[in-house]
Formats: sequence, structure tokens, C-alpha cells
Amino acid sequence: MNSNGKSDNKHITSAAAAAAADPWFSNYADRALGMRQSEVRSLFAVANRPEVVSLAGGMPNIDGLPLDFLADATSKLIRERGKKALQYGSGQGEEFLRSAICEVMRPDGITANPDNIIVTIGSQQSLDLISQVFLNPGDTVLVEAPSYVGALGVFDAYQADIQHVQMDNDGLIPSVLEETIIRLQKEGKNIKFLYTIPNFHNPGGMCLSAERRPLIVEICKKYNILLVEDNPYGLLGFSGDPVPSLYNLNPEGILYLGTFSKTFAPGFRIGWTLGPQAIIERLVLANESATLCPPAFSQFAITTYLEQYDWYQQVKEYREVYHERGEAMQKALEKYLPDLEWTRPTGGFYTWVKLPDGIDARDMLPRAVDCGVAYVAGNAFYADGETGADHIRLSFCYPSPEEITEGVRRLSIAIKQELENKY
Amino acid sequence: MNSNGKSDNKHITSAAAAAAADPWFSNYADRALGMRQSEVRSLFAVANRPEVVSLAGGMPNIDGLPLDFLADATSKLIRERGKKALQYGSGQGEEFLRSAICEVMRPDGITANPDNIIVTIGSQQSLDLISQVFLNPGDTVLVEAPSYVGALGVFDAYQADIQHVQMDNDGLIPSVLEETIIRLQKEGKNIKFLYTIPNFHNPGGMCLSAERRPLIVEICKKYNILLVEDNPYGLLGFSGDPVPSLYNLNPEGILYLGTFSKTFAPGFRIGWTLGPQAIIERLVLANESATLCPPAFSQFAITTYLEQYDWYQQVKEYREVYHERGEAMQKALEKYLPDLEWTRPTGGFYTWVKLPDGIDARDMLPRAVDCGVAYVAGNAFYADGETGADHIRLSFCYPSPEEITEGVRRLSIAIKQELENKY
Repeated sequence: MNSNGKSDNKHITSAAAAAAADPWFSNYADRALGMRQSEVRSLFAVANRPEVVSLAGGMPNIDGLPLDFLADATSKLIRERGKKALQYGSGQGEEFLRSAICEVMRPDGITANPDNIIVTIGSQQSLDLISQVFLNPGDTVLVEAPSYVGALGVFDAYQADIQHVQMDNDGLIPSVLEETIIRLQKEGKNIKFLYTIPNFHNPGGMCLSAERRPLIVEICKKYNILLVEDNPYGLLGFSGDPVPSLYNLNPEGILYLGTFSKTFAPGFRIGWTLGPQAIIERLVLANESATLCPPAFSQFAITTYLEQYDWYQQVKEYREVYHERGEAMQKALEKYLPDLEWTRPTGGFYTWVKLPDGIDARDMLPRAVDCGVAYVAGNAFYADGETGADHIRLSFCYPSPEEITEGVRRLSIAIKQELENKY
Repeated sequence: MNSNGKSDNKHITSAAAAAAADPWFSNYADRALGMRQSEVRSLFAVANRPEVVSLAGGMPNIDGLPLDFLADATSKLIRERGKKALQYGSGQGEEFLRSAICEVMRPDGITANPDNIIVTIGSQQSLDLISQVFLNPGDTVLVEAPSYVGALGVFDAYQADIQHVQMDNDGLIPSVLEETIIRLQKEGKNIKFLYTIPNFHNPGGMCLSAERRPLIVEICKKYNILLVEDNPYGLLGFSGDPVPSLYNLNPEGILYLGTFSKTFAPGFRIGWTLGPQAIIERLVLANESATLCPPAFSQFAITTYLEQYDWYQQVKEYREVYHERGEAMQKALEKYLPDLEWTRPTGGFYTWVKLPDGIDARDMLPRAVDCGVAYVAGNAFYADGETGADHIRLSFCYPSPEEITEGVRRLSIAIKQELENKY
């Protein structure tokens, strides 16, 4: 925790307990003392209880995967090219996959060169490598308010000073971004980059509007701030092709993060970063130190899929799946919780719901689980771990439409009980 | 580079050049400025030229893999359990694989609990996570002289102070280890761990003798220094079952690193760390931040192989392959370079050769490549990048016995030319 007295106290108490239980405690690096379990992860055990409808996790729904095709293609791959697919590979990732990734980014309006891409162990490792290359302890990172919990975890592990910038239903607010930059630079902060999820935000659900996109990019250019554009859900808009990415507006100042975890399957753990050559070279060095190279087998398998299967048709099928589920969630919220405010995503996995005044999402969670529904308390998406507890993130990616409806119904009961106990 | 004037100078020059070419140069973290391409990696392009016999790389020879079995098993896996194998998994690694890993460690004399294991992206990521959890900039790490280039790269990336400890043909010398610890602790150094490869050392080729094993462990215990035991080659002794690991002698003070890259296949990028529960929990947190989780598909595939195939028989076949190649190298060295000194490994991948006085392995390398042979210059295995240039590492893992013989013959020509040009 960076800027919060309360959690520092908690920290010290738990540190003393940990030291008593662990003879190696005094040997840990400073950064390790700040590592904490993500609240999303802690929920996994609860969420997996069969009687609970989990609107908490972000697992993609991969029921639609063409398993027969994949089984045959993988078998052929091992038989015919196994000696290469099971060997070490390049620290930058295999050239044939980087070329295929260029095709995958075309619908985002991106024309890229395979040399400007590094293959990573999912976007999470992209964030880790970028942090490794850019962040000294105390450096500032700008993120949206709220922001992706996994990104906050990485920046925290690198002992960054995390500063949130306000959003509204059209995404990051350009004027607030500029004011924040001016204020922080005046305070002498070293702002290393802005981390943003412009499409179908996690946890917010909103998109950065087309009008604001050039404004955000221009502000970053003006103040010489690198922009990290994380785009896991860009292809998963409910109603068709994606909005052009930020990347195109300033390729020399943007690192674009993509992943196959949401549009294909997370089990191969393959993502990528696209960016200026000099930065990519540093990321490759960091990657060689971190893992030597990404798994060759995953790369061969994904390339085979991209080349031999109509992957964009598969993306369209996923869109349908999430569209149906997203609509089920909107209808259920309108039916069971009409007095609340929530975002109305046009794609992606998440809806961000404002709770009635006075309800703390953390306090309510165990009682919601008793009612048979799980969510993520909004404070998980803030660096101080406190702000945002008046919101919850609801996921509609994994459960069926019926489960979503039932989950929201149970949530409405939990909220009602909470209000009754309060007043 | 930490403690070397010469390479600091080189560093500054190349930094200036890099800054001119890269507008983001001034934004990099301190740790990123020290990142450098491993000399082994730089060689890959050269080593892949078909006319050159590469005795440089450490790629395992996986020609013997049962590709038909793997093709069928993987196809069945995807068809029947694809929805799990292609989904996200646990940050610690799947429980079924951790249980199977316990069986894999039995020949090393290890009885372990799956809870004490974390699955990683190969041993390289184990080293990265351990460094992340233990190393503040300036902390000291003890390593053998020479030591594995990939480990030096990681410790360097975490800005550690790397101190080499002398070895002889029986491995690390206990008295020198103790003297080094006393001297460094007197100097106020904070020694975080000893990193050692006790079996079939990379690049040395030697084994830590059975007599010295308890002595090394006792010294670490006495001075409260964590021991990191890296054991990629332990199962690959030429003449049978492995020597019991160090781990057994002090499970509360040792992190044991294993990998499937050498005994099965590197393409799945799966390794592991076994250690005290409290440390493993920290490593899991670090892993969740670094990659969320290791690839589920790789873990399902390896577990299927371990459960359904006679993997230990496969290890025995690998032993034969490397035994034959190791002998070919010894015979070739005796025939073509009888006046030199070299180690006589009883397993693993490498021989460490002392060059004639006055020859610098780095200077000779381009001329050796002209003669049609590649090796790794010994200075790659020292933190200062200078020491060790009077040695070379020869790998016998990948080329055929005939290629090895021809490679050593060419090397003898290169050395002869070098001596003629010198005197």
C-alpha cells in the first residue's frame, strides 16, 4: 500500500505475524513485503462452490472452442514438427507467430511489423516486463479510476506510486488527465507512463469515445508520457468491428498489449506487446532474463489455429455469447435493482455497479455469498485498497444467461437485507 | 556490470549511443540500463549456420522423444479435457502436476509435499521469482566460479552484487566458501543466498562430491544463508542413478530448482521450485503478479506424459545419448588437443576447457568460427564479463558424435593458428 495509513498498520501487524512464522522473513527484498494476494484470487475458492453464482471471475467462456479441430491440428503438429515445437525458441517469440499477430491486429486498424512485437506469457507478463524496464521504486504510473487489479498488483510489486485519473461513461476524461499530469509534474513526480484500457474497460465496462482518443494521445505526447494501451477485449464488441486503436495515432509513443486469452483460449498463456523497436529490444532482454523464451509449443499451436481455422468467425461467435450474457445482465439489473446506477457496456466482460449510499461492498460480500452470489468489491481496483468500496464489479463472461439473472436476483436480496440492517 | 571499470566505460559509451537512437532512453529504470544480451544468445545466429559445428548451445537433443505417443495423448487430452486444459489455472501450478513432480524427484532421494512446490516457466523463471522475492539492489549472491550465464543475467538484472566462489574437480570448495562468507560479512555485505549447480555443472561439467555435500549445507546453515540448488541435469548421469540432492540435508533452508527442459522437452517451458512453505507462498504471489499462472495446457500435457508413458525409461535413453556424445568429446580432446586441461564430466552437457597460456577465448572466437566451430568464451560465466576468458565451454548435448569429433578437430586447428600468430 502506498498512501494509506490504515493499511500500513494492517501491514505491520501481518508482517510481525509473518516474521514469527517464517525464519527467512528478514531476508526478503523490500518489494516482496508489499506483495499481497489479489482480492479476485482470494475469491476463487468461494466462487467455485457450486451453489454460488459467481459474477466475480474474469474467466472467458471457452465452451465454443473447436476442440476436434484443435485436437487434430495439434496431433499433426507434434507428429510432423514436434522436434521444433518442443524445443527452445527465440526470446522475442517465434517470427511466424509475430507475423500472424500482425494479421490479428488488422481489425483494430493496426498495420505492424513483426520486428516490433514481443510474445509474452499473456498480457500480465507484458505488464511485468514493461514495469521491469521502466519503473524505479517511487516512479509514478497513471491509471484509470478504477483500474485492472492485475495491473495495480504489478505496479505495486515494482513499488510504483500509482495515481488514478477520473473516468466517466466515455472513458478517461482528457481535461482531468492533463490537470493531473501538470499537478504531479509540479510536485516533482517522475511519471513513467499512462496505463489505459480504452475498450470495454475492466472493471468499468465503458469505452473511450472516438472523440477523446486523439485528445488523450496528444496530451501524452505533449508531456512526453509513454502510453500503455491494454486491449484484451477490443475484438469483443457486441455489435461488430472494433473502434480503431490508440496505437495508430502515435506508434512511437505507445505500447500496445494484446492477448489470445479472451479471443481464443487462456491455457496457452500467450500475449504480446507491440511498440517502438528500441523499447521492444529492452523488453526482449528482460524476457530472456525472466523466462529465456515463451513456450514454443503454445506458439506453434496458436499459429496453426490462426492459419488453418477461421479464427475471426470464432471471435464473432464469442461476441454472440458475450452479447447474450451482457444483455441478460442489463435486463436483470433493470428488473431487480432498478434504483441503482451501473455502466452499460457494449462489449467485453464487465458491468460496474454503484451500490446504494452507505453500503460497503467488502462488508456485504460474505452476506452476498450466503445469499448465493459472488462479486468483486470495487476497492480491489484502486491502489489504496479503500476507494471504490461503494462499487462492485459484476462479470457476465462465464455464467449462463439464466445464472446471471439468478445471480442478480440474489444480489438484490443481499442489498435489500443490507439496507434493512442499516436503517 | 558491477565491479569492473573497463566494462563500465563500455557501458557509458553504448548508453550514449542508445540514448541518441531511442527517445525513451531517459525513461528506463536503473535496472534496465544494466541489461545486456547474453553472449550465448548472441551466438545463436552464428551457431545456426549449417557449415559451423556448434559446440556452443545448450539445447537438449530431443530426437528420441516419442512423438507418436505425444501426438495421440495430446489429441485425446484436448478432445476430452480441452475446456480445462485451455482455461486459466492456479498461480501455484496445477495440483496434479505438483503431485507428479514429487514422483519425478524421488530418484534424487527427495520426499516432498505438492504444497511445497510452485510450477514456473522453466528454471529461469524460478531464478527470476527468487530474485524478485529476495534481492534488493546491492544485496550479495554467492555463485560458483564459473556459474550459469542465465543465472548471472537474472542476478545482474536485480542489481545484485555477485561474488564467485572457487571450485575444483569436486565442485565448490567448502573452506573457500566459508572464508568468503566470513570476509564478505565482515565487509558488511548482506548475503542473500548461495546459488549452486551441484550436479554436472554448467559450464564446469563437474559434480559436487558426496563428502562435500553435507559440509556445504552445514556452512550455509551456520551462517544462515539460503541455499538455491539448481538441478537441471541431475537425472542425466552417464552411468546410472543420481547422487542424493542437497535438499534432503536441510529442507528448511534450501530452494530446489527442477525442470522438464532437459529430461523431457523445453517447448512446454515448465520447471518448478521446491522449498519451505512460507517462501513458496511469496513466490506464488510474485508469480501471480508476473504471469497470473503458468500455461495450463503445458501442465496437462506434461502430466499426461508422466502418468501414461515410461518417462524414466525415456530419461535412461537420454542418458545413453549424452553418454555417447560425452565420450566422443573426451576422445576427440585426447586425440586433437592432448596438451590441454579439461574437465571429465560423468553426466550433463558440458566440458570446461583451459586454453593454452596467452590465448583469449573472445579474440579467438571469430577465427574459430572461420575454422567451422563455435564455443562459448569462458568470460560469459563470470559476473565481471572478463574473468574466465582463458577457458571455453564445449557442449556435447546437441551435435552427433561425428560432428563433435570434427568440431574438436577444427578447434585444434584454430588453437594452433592462434598460437602460431602469437609467437
